[in-house]
Amino acid sequence: MKKILVTLAFLAASAAVFGQDKTKVDPETGFPLPQEMEHAMTEFWNPQPKVVEPGEYVGNPAPSDAIVLFDGTNLDAWQSYDGSDAKWEVKNGAMTVVKGTGDIRTKQNFGSFQLHIEWREPRNLKGSSQERGNSGVFLQGIYEVQVLDSYNNPTYNSGGAGSIYKQSAPMANPTRKPGEWNVYDIIYNAPVFHEDGTYRVYPTVTVLFNGVLVQNNTRINGTTEWIGLPEVRPHGDGPIILQDHENPVSFRNIWIREIK
Amino acid sequence: MKKILVTLAFLAASAAVFGQDKTKVDPETGFPLPQEMEHAMTEFWNPQPKVVEPGEYVGNPAPSDAIVLFDGTNLDAWQSYDGSDAKWEVKNGAMTVVKGTGDIRTKQNFGSFQLHIEWREPRNLKGSSQERGNSGVFLQGIYEVQVLDSYNNPTYNSGGAGSIYKQSAPMANPTRKPGEWNVYDIIYNAPVFHEDGTYRVYPTVTVLFNGVLVQNNTRINGTTEWIGLPEVRPHGDGPIILQDHENPVSFRNIWIREIK
Amino acid sequence: MKKILVTLAFLAASAAVFGQDKTKVDPETGFPLPQEMEHAMTEFWNPQPKVVEPGEYVGNPAPSDAIVLFDGTNLDAWQSYDGSDAKWEVKNGAMTVVKGTGDIRTKQNFGSFQLHIEWREPRNLKGSSQERGNSGVFLQGIYEVQVLDSYNNPTYNSGGAGSIYKQSAPMANPTRKPGEWNVYDIIYNAPVFHEDGTYRVYPTVTVLFNGVLVQNNTRINGTTEWIGLPEVRPHGDGPIILQDHENPVSFRNIWIREIK
Amino acid sequence: MKKILVTLAFLAASAAVFGQDKTKVDPETGFPLPQEMEHAMTEFWNPQPKVVEPGEYVGNPAPSDAIVLFDGTNLDAWQSYDGSDAKWEVKNGAMTVVKGTGDIRTKQNFGSFQLHIEWREPRNLKGSSQERGNSGVFLQGIYEVQVLDSYNNPTYNSGGAGSIYKQSAPMANPTRKPGEWNVYDIIYNAPVFHEDGTYRVYPTVTVLFNGVLVQNNTRINGTTEWIGLPEVRPHGDGPIILQDHENPVSFRNIWIREIK
Repeated sequence: MKKILVTLAFLAASAAVFGQDKTKVDPETGFPLPQEMEHAMTEFWNPQPKVVEPGEYVGNPAPSDAIVLFDGTNLDAWQSYDGSDAKWEVKNGAMTVVKGTGDIRTKQNFGSFQLHIEWREPRNLKGSSQERGNSGVFLQGIYEVQVLDSYNNPTYNSGGAGSIYKQSAPMANPTRKPGEWNVYDIIYNAPVFHEDGTYRVYPTVTVLFNGVLVQNNTRINGTTEWIGLPEVRPHGDGPIILQDHENPVSFRNIWIREIK
Repeated sequence: MKKILVTLAFLAASAAVFGQDKTKVDPETGFPLPQEMEHAMTEFWNPQPKVVEPGEYVGNPAPSDAIVLFDGTNLDAWQSYDGSDAKWEVKNGAMTVVKGTGDIRTKQNFGSFQLHIEWREPRNLKGSSQERGNSGVFLQGIYEVQVLDSYNNPTYNSGGAGSIYKQSAPMANPTRKPGEWNVYDIIYNAPVFHEDGTYRVYPTVTVLFNGVLVQNNTRINGTTEWIGLPEVRPHGDGPIILQDHENPVSFRNIWIREIK
Repeated sequence: MKKILVTLAFLAASAAVFGQDKTKVDPETGFPLPQEMEHAMTEFWNPQPKVVEPGEYVGNPAPSDAIVLFDGTNLDAWQSYDGSDAKWEVKNGAMTVVKGTGDIRTKQNFGSFQLHIEWREPRNLKGSSQERGNSGVFLQGIYEVQVLDSYNNPTYNSGGAGSIYKQSAPMANPTRKPGEWNVYDIIYNAPVFHEDGTYRVYPTVTVLFNGVLVQNNTRINGTTEWIGLPEVRPHGDGPIILQDHENPVSFRNIWIREIK
Repeated sequence: MKKILVTLAFLAASAAVFGQDKTKVDPETGFPLPQEMEHAMTEFWNPQPKVVEPGEYVGNPAPSDAIVLFDGTNLDAWQSYDGSDAKWEVKNGAMTVVKGTGDIRTKQNFGSFQLHIEWREPRNLKGSSQERGNSGVFLQGIYEVQVLDSYNNPTYNSGGAGSIYKQSAPMANPTRKPGEWNVYDIIYNAPVFHEDGTYRVYPTVTVLFNGVLVQNNTRINGTTEWIGLPEVRPHGDGPIILQDHENPVSFRNIWIREIK
C-alpha cells in the first residue's frame, strides 16, 4: 500500500509543479490541448444578487397565437431524449420531474421566441447551493436558464435561479418560497453562425422572473457548461428541454410564441 | 376673389414644380435648410400588425424594490409641465386625463428602467385612427410608446398601441376592448451620447403588451415626432410623461425599477 | 384685404384638417398611402463634417486571399446591369465612368466582406454640391457609400464623400483634391432578415476614408434613397455596384475579402 | 491489485464529492472563492488562423487631426509606470523594448479612438509559441491586442498576433517575417459601466493587421488575463501601454485619433 500512496503523492506533486505537463497533446495536430478545468473555477459567489420580493404575478395565460406546450393535462408536446414518451408525472395541473427518467424535450424545435413557463420547488427540500431543487430550462436545447430553489439558498451567483448558467448572474433574486409557483418570461433571440461554426450573431436573452427583470438582453457566449468555458458549436432550431437534475421540481403553464 | 384664387393656384404649382424653392436658407451658414415634411409622409398603414388575443394578464403588482408611481390613490409622484400640481382626475383607483390640463410628468427623473403601467380606454369612444383614445407614455420625457384604442381601429402601423411612435410598429396587436385594462411592461435602456450630441449608444426598448412581445430590443432613433424625422438631441435622465391628447384615457398600477 | 386674409386662413385651416387629402389610397386595402416626400426633406447641411487632411496612404495592395475585382487592366469581373459587357473606359490602370453607359456591377455576389477601393475625381470639375463628381459604391448592390468631390464642396452632410447616402454623415471629411486618388477601406456586415422581410440584424458598415475613420460600425437602416426614407426589403448576397452618375469618376485597385 | 483499485476508486470518489475542498473560503462572507485556474486552461490551439500574405501596406502617415504618439525621434509622449521617463531605446526612427525597463504608457489618457501603430520583430528570434517576440498594445491600459512573432510560429489561437489576448483569435494570420514592419489599425470603442462596476456597454474593437481584417467589431469581455477568466472592473479613460515582455520588439509611427 505504501508504495501506491507514494506514487499517488508523486503524481499530485508533479501535476502541481509542472502545470502544462498535464496538458494532453492532440494526436492529430501535435498541438497541446487545453488543460481541463474544474467546476469550482467558474463559481463566483460574491456578490450575491439582491433579494427582491416579487409581486403576486403568476399564471399569465397564453395569447391566442401561442403554442401551448403544457396546459396541465398531458405531456403530448414532450418526449424523452431517446424519442420515447416523456415519463414525468402529470398531476393537479403540473408536471413533475421523476428522478432518473431523464430530461424531457419538446417535440417541436424553435428558433427565436417568447416563452412563458412556471415552476415550483417542493416544500421540504434539503441540501444547499446546487443541491436544492435543481432543474433547468434549456433554450434551443443548449443554453440553460437555471432553475433552483434560490430562496434563502446562496450559491455561486451565475448558478442561482434566473441565471444563464455559469455565464450571467441574475440582476436580482425574486425567488419565491418553496411550494409557491415562480414564473419565467423569456425573450430569446437565436444565434446566427459563420461558416466556420463561430457566432456571427450571438444568442441573446431577456428574462423576467416573477415579473422582475433579471436578464437584460444578455449575450449568451456559448453552451452553459458545469465544468469549463462556454463552447460554441453551430446549431439550427432546437427544442425546449427541461432538466431532470434528480429533484422533484414541477412545471406548469408553458407556452411559447415564435419570433420568425 | 378670382384673382386671389389664381394667385393661390400659381403658388401651389410653383411649389410642386420647383421643389427645392421651398427650402429656406439658414441665414447663419447660407446653407439650405431641409424642406419641411408633412405628417402623412411618415404614416405607413400596410401591413397592419396581426391581431392577437392576449391572455388575461393584468395587474402585476410592484416588486419590493420598485418605486410606485401611482397606487390608485393620489398624484403625489406627478406634476404638470410648469411644476404645478398634476390636474388629472383620480377616482376608483385610476387616474384619468382631464382634457386641456396638459401632460403630467413624474417628479423624479430616470435613466434605464423597467416600467409597469396599465391603461384603459373609455367604452364609448368615437373617431378613428389617431382620433380614438390617443395618449402616450414618454420614456425619459422624450420617446413615446403610443397609447391608442387599437381595438378594431386601424391606423398607420407605427402609430398604434405598442408602437414606438412613428418609428417602430408593434410586432402584434393584442389591444383589449375599450373599457378593459391594458398592460405595458417596458424595459428601457437609456442612450449614451457623443460630445457632439449624437448617439454613441442608441436607446433601446422592449415592450410586452398584455404579456405579448411587441418590441424586441428595438433601437430608438431619436425623438418620436408627429411631423418629420426623429431628432437626436442629448439629454440626461428624464421623467415618465403621460400625454394629454384630449382623450379621457385612464392609467393605474404604475411602478418602475431603476437599472443603474 | 381682410377678405383675402380670411380666405387664406380658411385654406390653411383646411390644409391642417384635411392634410391627409394629398395622400393617395391603396386600392387594395383602402388604407391611405404615405404622402410622397421630396428630396430636400432628407438634406441636412448643418453641421458640415470637419475637414481633416489625410496622410499619404493610398494603394494598399491586395492580400493573398482577396478576390481582385480590378487590377488596372480589364473589366472582366464586371458587367452592365443587363448582363452585357461593362462599357466603362480602362486606361492607365484605372477604370472611368463613361457617361450614359450605366452602372457596372461585379459578376460575383457577396455577403459580408472587407472591400478596398480607390477613386479619383477629374481635375476640372464644375458644378457644386451633388453636381460635382458624383458616383457611388453600392454594397450588396443596395446600400450606397457615396463618392463625391467633397474637396471644398459643401453639400448636405449625409451626401458627401464617405457618407452612407442620406443616412449617416461621415465623422470627418478627408477628401483629397481632384486629380488625386482617394481610398475607401470598407468593412461590411450583411443583414439577416425576419420571415416578413424586415431586418432581424441590420447591416453595419465601418469605413476608413484615406485612412481616417468616417463610419464607426454604423447601422444601415435600409436602402439609400435620394427621395424619401430608407426602405427595407429582403435580399441575399449581392454585387458591388459602381454608379454612373454622369461624371467621369475613376476607380482602381479594387479588391475584396469575403467574411464567411 | 484489487485493493489498489479500490483505493484509487475511493480517491476518485472523494475528489468528486469534496472537489470544492481545493477552493478557499472568503473570510469576510464565508462563501467559497473560485478555485484558481492555470494558464493552459485558456489556451486553444485548434484551429490555427489561416495564413494570409498581406499586401505591402505599411507606414500610413498621420492625418492632420491625429495626436502623434511617436514620430521616430523621442519618447516625450510616454513614461514608465512609476511616472519616470520611459527607458526604451530610440534609434533609426523606431523605439525598442529594453528588457527589464518595464512597460511604457502614454502620458495622455484616451476613451474611444482610432489607433495606428507599427511593430517589428528582430530577425534572429529564438523560442517558440509565446516565447518568441512577445509584446502587446494595451487599450485604455487594460485590454491587450497581442504582439507576437506569429510568422511560422504556432501558439494558442487567441495568443497570436492580432488576437485580443486569450479572448478572441484573429480571423487570419497576416504576420510578416521577422525584420519587417507590421501594422495595426485599431478602432476601439470604450465601455460604459453600470453603477455596480459591470459593463453596461462592453468595449469593442476592430483590428486591421497589415491591412487585413482580423477583429470585426469584437466584443471585449474584460481584462486580458494570462491565467483565468477576463475580469470586469470599472475604469475611465486610460493610456496606451506597450508591453516589455523581455523581447526586443520595436515600434514606430504611432498616432491616435480620439473619438469623442
